[in-house]
Amino acid sequence: MADPRLLAYLDACDADALVTADPGLVRMLTGHATEVGFGPSPFQLPALAVAARAAPAQLVCSADEAAEGESTHVYEGFTTAPLDPLAGAAAALGAAMTAAGAGATRTLVDGASLPAGLMPGIAGAVAAPLAGLAMLPARKTPAEVEAIEAALRLCEAGHAAARAATRAGAGELDLWAAISAAIDAAAGARTTVIADLLSGPRTEDIGGPPVPRALGQGDLVLADIVPRLDGIWGDSCATWAIGDPPPAAVEMHALARGALATGLGALRPGAVAGDVDRAVRGEVEAAGHSYPHHTGHGLGFAWHEEPRIVPESATVLEPGMVVALEPGAYRGGIGVRVEVVAVVTADGCRVLSQHPLGLAADAGTEAV
Amino acid sequence: MADPRLLAYLDACDADALVTADPGLVRMLTGHATEVGFGPSPFQLPALAVAARAAPAQLVCSADEAAEGESTHVYEGFTTAPLDPLAGAAAALGAAMTAAGAGATRTLVDGASLPAGLMPGIAGAVAAPLAGLAMLPARKTPAEVEAIEAALRLCEAGHAAARAATRAGAGELDLWAAISAAIDAAAGARTTVIADLLSGPRTEDIGGPPVPRALGQGDLVLADIVPRLDGIWGDSCATWAIGDPPPAAVEMHALARGALATGLGALRPGAVAGDVDRAVRGEVEAAGHSYPHHTGHGLGFAWHEEPRIVPESATVLEPGMVVALEPGAYRGGIGVRVEVVAVVTADGCRVLSQHPLGLAADAGTEAV
Repeated sequence: MADPRLLAYLDACDADALVTADPGLVRMLTGHATEVGFGPSPFQLPALAVAARAAPAQLVCSADEAAEGESTHVYEGFTTAPLDPLAGAAAALGAAMTAAGAGATRTLVDGASLPAGLMPGIAGAVAAPLAGLAMLPARKTPAEVEAIEAALRLCEAGHAAARAATRAGAGELDLWAAISAAIDAAAGARTTVIADLLSGPRTEDIGGPPVPRALGQGDLVLADIVPRLDGIWGDSCATWAIGDPPPAAVEMHALARGALATGLGALRPGAVAGDVDRAVRGEVEAAGHSYPHHTGHGLGFAWHEEPRIVPESATVLEPGMVVALEPGAYRGGIGVRVEVVAVVTADGCRVLSQHPLGLAADAGTEAV
Repeated sequence: MADPRLLAYLDACDADALVTADPGLVRMLTGHATEVGFGPSPFQLPALAVAARAAPAQLVCSADEAAEGESTHVYEGFTTAPLDPLAGAAAALGAAMTAAGAGATRTLVDGASLPAGLMPGIAGAVAAPLAGLAMLPARKTPAEVEAIEAALRLCEAGHAAARAATRAGAGELDLWAAISAAIDAAAGARTTVIADLLSGPRTEDIGGPPVPRALGQGDLVLADIVPRLDGIWGDSCATWAIGDPPPAAVEMHALARGALATGLGALRPGAVAGDVDRAVRGEVEAAGHSYPHHTGHGLGFAWHEEPRIVPESATVLEPGMVVALEPGAYRGGIGVRVEVVAVVTADGCRVLSQHPLGLAADAGTEAV
């Protein structure tokens, strides 16, 4: 049975199938989590999904990623023979198109992800409308929400390790090493993790990787920790201080926490994403502060997806949408941000995150 | 001035320009090192290079990656506005094609990397012949060799940390955490690192990431450490023991080191890659062992590129080619591999690697 979210998209586009190499969509449609942490491989192309109406979604990848199967079409990967993964992927894609019953009429192609060299093998190809494609993974199934919760447990391991490693004289890179080691230990495997890690006056820069800077007494630490587990992303941000932070930081942090609570109160079915953005952003601006980024975003198959919580969005929230909210304030060498993830329920939302948000480095388990 | 390697390729293909999204080729042609460690971004497409005969290579990327410039064409990246990076990249690609004077006649498209949705903007597009494209980055400039040497210094930091962390009871993930932290510290930044890390009987598996396994007395550790610095890859492998390894491991390790020395002795201009493979592989097989992988590979813009040192290769080595050689032996719960990187010189080769290869965990600085 095809995914009802896919069927709705195909209906809206008057199409019969979708071909994509986006790792999030491949994970959603086939369940296959492809490696994304090292860039392209000379031995293989990105994994592909061919998703049609009448058949299970078909996976196309190298034999290094998956075994050939009823809905899996593989080509040679790592080899001592001459390399031509494009030809291999094209042949396996052809088999997948046949198995899916795709190509007879209109097949949507995800032009942002599919390698151009595979286009000649896709009969009836038309460009997939991207706005609808972006909405495809917005509503999560209960199993997908559970997978996001599992990724959030890794976020919490990272935050606990970062707070435990926080002391004057430690470097930002030391905190990052502690985060990475704790997440790998919690996952039992090397794990892809995006992280903003800033300290002291650098927190005003909002985001970016750690640098060789030593923490000082009174410094803030801003950590936005984004791990990927089984192809599903978690997300989490907190800001804490070493010792006593400046009074302005205390005030800005309380403001961000209040705005976060306002946002969580606004997450419910029928709410318009742009209205949620204005409620949260407006609260921060009414206090004389601001943040130049989104108020929040969907999460799961990508680390930023629909529903985007941004000023101009007309997207209406629905049950099953998973949203990360992350208001902040940045000024005068001080930056603070707090972020939690929630799933929209029948009548509101349920917070999924459990990492501490407190400004004291030893905030323990105090979460939202 | 266009890169002479590019001009030779364009001549061979009777073409005027090349468009690619391969991060290694983008680095070679434009100097731009794009992030590869986290998979696709919802805010941008992969960075592109448009390389033509008469103009400097043009870079196309989001404004988050580079500033607009004479040879750089950017589009909006991170934003609170509606997202359409494909349209942004297409517009910037159009500007780059104009600046490069490309598109008037034949433009080669790297079909394995270029997103299909950008094809409509490339007039005169023809599929780039892939065998020639693979040879494009094989000969390195002196500056590129220096960049590879800088990446090899990170390998050495990783090996030193892994050996120092080696003790009975430590886990494979602990060694990996030590490697990652040491490389990040040496680079002064978060660094993308591929690593095989195996211990005990798992070393027979040849490759793969670390798992939650504790090292035991007498165990082997096999670490193949592959960091990326400024868009350029290093590579390195060593195998060492905790305490006294089994006699078979000592014998197999000596065999691999001898075969590596044979391979280094065979690296010279005019040597055929397949002959080098046979000399090294044959020495291992004559001793009753074998390895099912390549004997070696080119290195730099990718972690495995031409010249591939594999049985059927007719590639003739030339000065400036950088080769990693990595013979091994795997049997009976024991796997060993040693790997160093060398650059082909006018009359032989010069070893660039400095990590220790000894079987004793505290092998210190004893290199090849």
